Amino acid sequence: MTKRIFGYPIMKIGIIGGGQLGKMFAQKAKQMGFYVIILDPNPECPATQVADEQIIGDYYNENKLKELVEKSDVTTYEIEHINTAILKELFDKGYKIYPSPYSLEIIQDKLKQKQVLKGANLPVPRFEKVENFEVSFFEKFGFPFIQKATKGGYDGRGVVVIKDKNDLDKMLRVDSLIEEFVDMGKELAVMVARNLQGEIKCYPVVEMVFDESANILDLLIAPARIEKEIEENVKEIAIKAVEALDGIGIFGIEMFLTKDKKILINEIAPRPHNSGHYTIEACVTSQFEQHLRAICGFALGSTELLSPAVMINLLGEKGYRGVPLIEGLEEVLSIEGVSFHFYGKRLTSPYRKMGHVTIVDDNLDSAIEKAKKVKERLKIKSEVER
Amino acid sequence: MTKRIFGYPIMKIGIIGGGQLGKMFAQKAKQMGFYVIILDPNPECPATQVADEQIIGDYYNENKLKELVEKSDVTTYEIEHINTAILKELFDKGYKIYPSPYSLEIIQDKLKQKQVLKGANLPVPRFEKVENFEVSFFEKFGFPFIQKATKGGYDGRGVVVIKDKNDLDKMLRVDSLIEEFVDMGKELAVMVARNLQGEIKCYPVVEMVFDESANILDLLIAPARIEKEIEENVKEIAIKAVEALDGIGIFGIEMFLTKDKKILINEIAPRPHNSGHYTIEACVTSQFEQHLRAICGFALGSTELLSPAVMINLLGEKGYRGVPLIEGLEEVLSIEGVSFHFYGKRLTSPYRKMGHVTIVDDNLDSAIEKAKKVKERLKIKSEVER
Repeated sequence: MTKRIFGYPIMKIGIIGGGQLGKMFAQKAKQMGFYVIILDPNPECPATQVADEQIIGDYYNENKLKELVEKSDVTTYEIEHINTAILKELFDKGYKIYPSPYSLEIIQDKLKQKQVLKGANLPVPRFEKVENFEVSFFEKFGFPFIQKATKGGYDGRGVVVIKDKNDLDKMLRVDSLIEEFVDMGKELAVMVARNLQGEIKCYPVVEMVFDESANILDLLIAPARIEKEIEENVKEIAIKAVEALDGIGIFGIEMFLTKDKKILINEIAPRPHNSGHYTIEACVTSQFEQHLRAICGFALGSTELLSPAVMINLLGEKGYRGVPLIEGLEEVLSIEGVSFHFYGKRLTSPYRKMGHVTIVDDNLDSAIEKAKKVKERLKIKSEVER
Repeated sequence: MTKRIFGYPIMKIGIIGGGQLGKMFAQKAKQMGFYVIILDPNPECPATQVADEQIIGDYYNENKLKELVEKSDVTTYEIEHINTAILKELFDKGYKIYPSPYSLEIIQDKLKQKQVLKGANLPVPRFEKVENFEVSFFEKFGFPFIQKATKGGYDGRGVVVIKDKNDLDKMLRVDSLIEEFVDMGKELAVMVARNLQGEIKCYPVVEMVFDESANILDLLIAPARIEKEIEENVKEIAIKAVEALDGIGIFGIEMFLTKDKKILINEIAPRPHNSGHYTIEACVTSQFEQHLRAICGFALGSTELLSPAVMINLLGEKGYRGVPLIEGLEEVLSIEGVSFHFYGKRLTSPYRKMGHVTIVDDNLDSAIEKAKKVKERLKIKSEVER
């Protein structure tokens, strides 16, 4: 390896998307002496508040994407739904964009993603492309199943559960795949980082507990309460998945652990992930620093867990829209081990991710109890109920 | 306690001074959803790069200080050398400025500081105000001694060691005190936080190893390698000292541990402190979050040490001035447990604090070894040697 000499700033980093992931990533990059440019249509977005520069523009705007990539030494993104066509063009010209737009293109398309993983002999739920909407097609696949739009789904959008024939009229009329309904024991996730040199590191396996009604993460438990052997299998599969995608950067890999202890890959996010927020407080290297190290070609940092941790999202309370009002903050900050993150979004709305709380505690059960208390007390409302 | 409801931003925080302490404090405040305003004469200062707003102005400029205080819900500072007269006036009118300008005024004056501590029966080295520069005065006090300017000293400036009568012509002709030369075993430091409600918490006691030639911190070791009993004494003295000053916020208390195991308070900083940087990675609550909690009237966070840690400052290399060039970064980032902080100062100069590195490691000796390696490899130079 030739020795590089860095000036100040160390490098210029471009981030497509200025939400909370962009914000936390920008904060880490600024800590380390990087210059950070955000591309986002909203001049008040969370990331811009802590970065050096913003290009105001849409994630599909070719000119703005080009401007960002040309200004940056390395470009990355905090969302999947961006224009890959122009990014591929720029990548092919030699601009550094990681994870590569080719990896992203596979991940953007849930069908392609599953095909690549299956092709690499990795375990995924049984799935099939929806070729037509005839009853016989679905009967052949078998009920119940889950329909997933191949593109554009996010936080439960673009996903429909079909229990039987009577549900078929609920199906989305878009390009989609159907997937067997897994008899789930637990939902697991693991962050994997792979750098430009091909070095790979895996974070602890974590457990995601979902709120069934809103289909959104309720409680993130680190480490997952699973047997050592399953943990090792999960890590091995996660690493192979990132290799199969030729991934550079950090990846969030969501998996199902079935009741009969089978591990199946659910979905992969080519970026820092909600299930990795706990790494900020609980691990030697946060997922954001790890991503930065990976895409800049530095050695990866230690993924060691310093303390068990639980994370909960702070979602906008149902029934409230407008400038946020926070109830219960004082009480929650008096709970030992609580770290409070508030993203700086100007407006709240039902289920909008407004912040998160991480609790570190030597004892995982005690951390879970504290998290439940935080959930009960801390509410993001607004002046007017709507 | 009445329950407060917070909006977004949670509060507006004004910071006098935009250096690295202001930067790290601003980053934590932004994480937690605060709005941050920096007062600093330099539009490119480190803190401004990560904050919402800057007032460009000097720390002694009455109008600018007034503007900052009026705009902010709570005002604080990252440096001691600021105009306390106007701040006292504003404080008396009911503006929230913490630590209070009255506490600051005592600390700014090294003589007053010592007198207050001594008055509270806290152990300090034997000292005396310099009343005149006649030889007999110093002979009566006894050689060797240290002369300290009462005001304006910083990082070793304003301090002179007088070994004997022949050194007397080296003395500074300013208001000053002289202090006995302590037969030092170790230099210790401890961060203490006290919030608006009077709640007090103490961080682990740490050990400061100084580079004798430059009189600047060489190695910060957390926790200090001292007996439990001494640790308890240090903490007790530190807490009493902050109470004696009616301190609100975080305070860095530097102490001497003499060869015969006496503890003496050296100096107190009314702000986050270099010796507390390790708390970012190694403690549940960083010194910056703790300061924010304290001055906003929130409960203090846990000061528990999650891992032993060593911190070194990255100083501008002797002989180099100009835009920084960083040597050895790649190698250093490959050492397990290394966190790299680079402050974003546009120019380096000899001994200027350009950044710091914290190493966490289960084994303190191994952390010290790694820190020495980092020190050897990581150099902040510049294009032109001068």
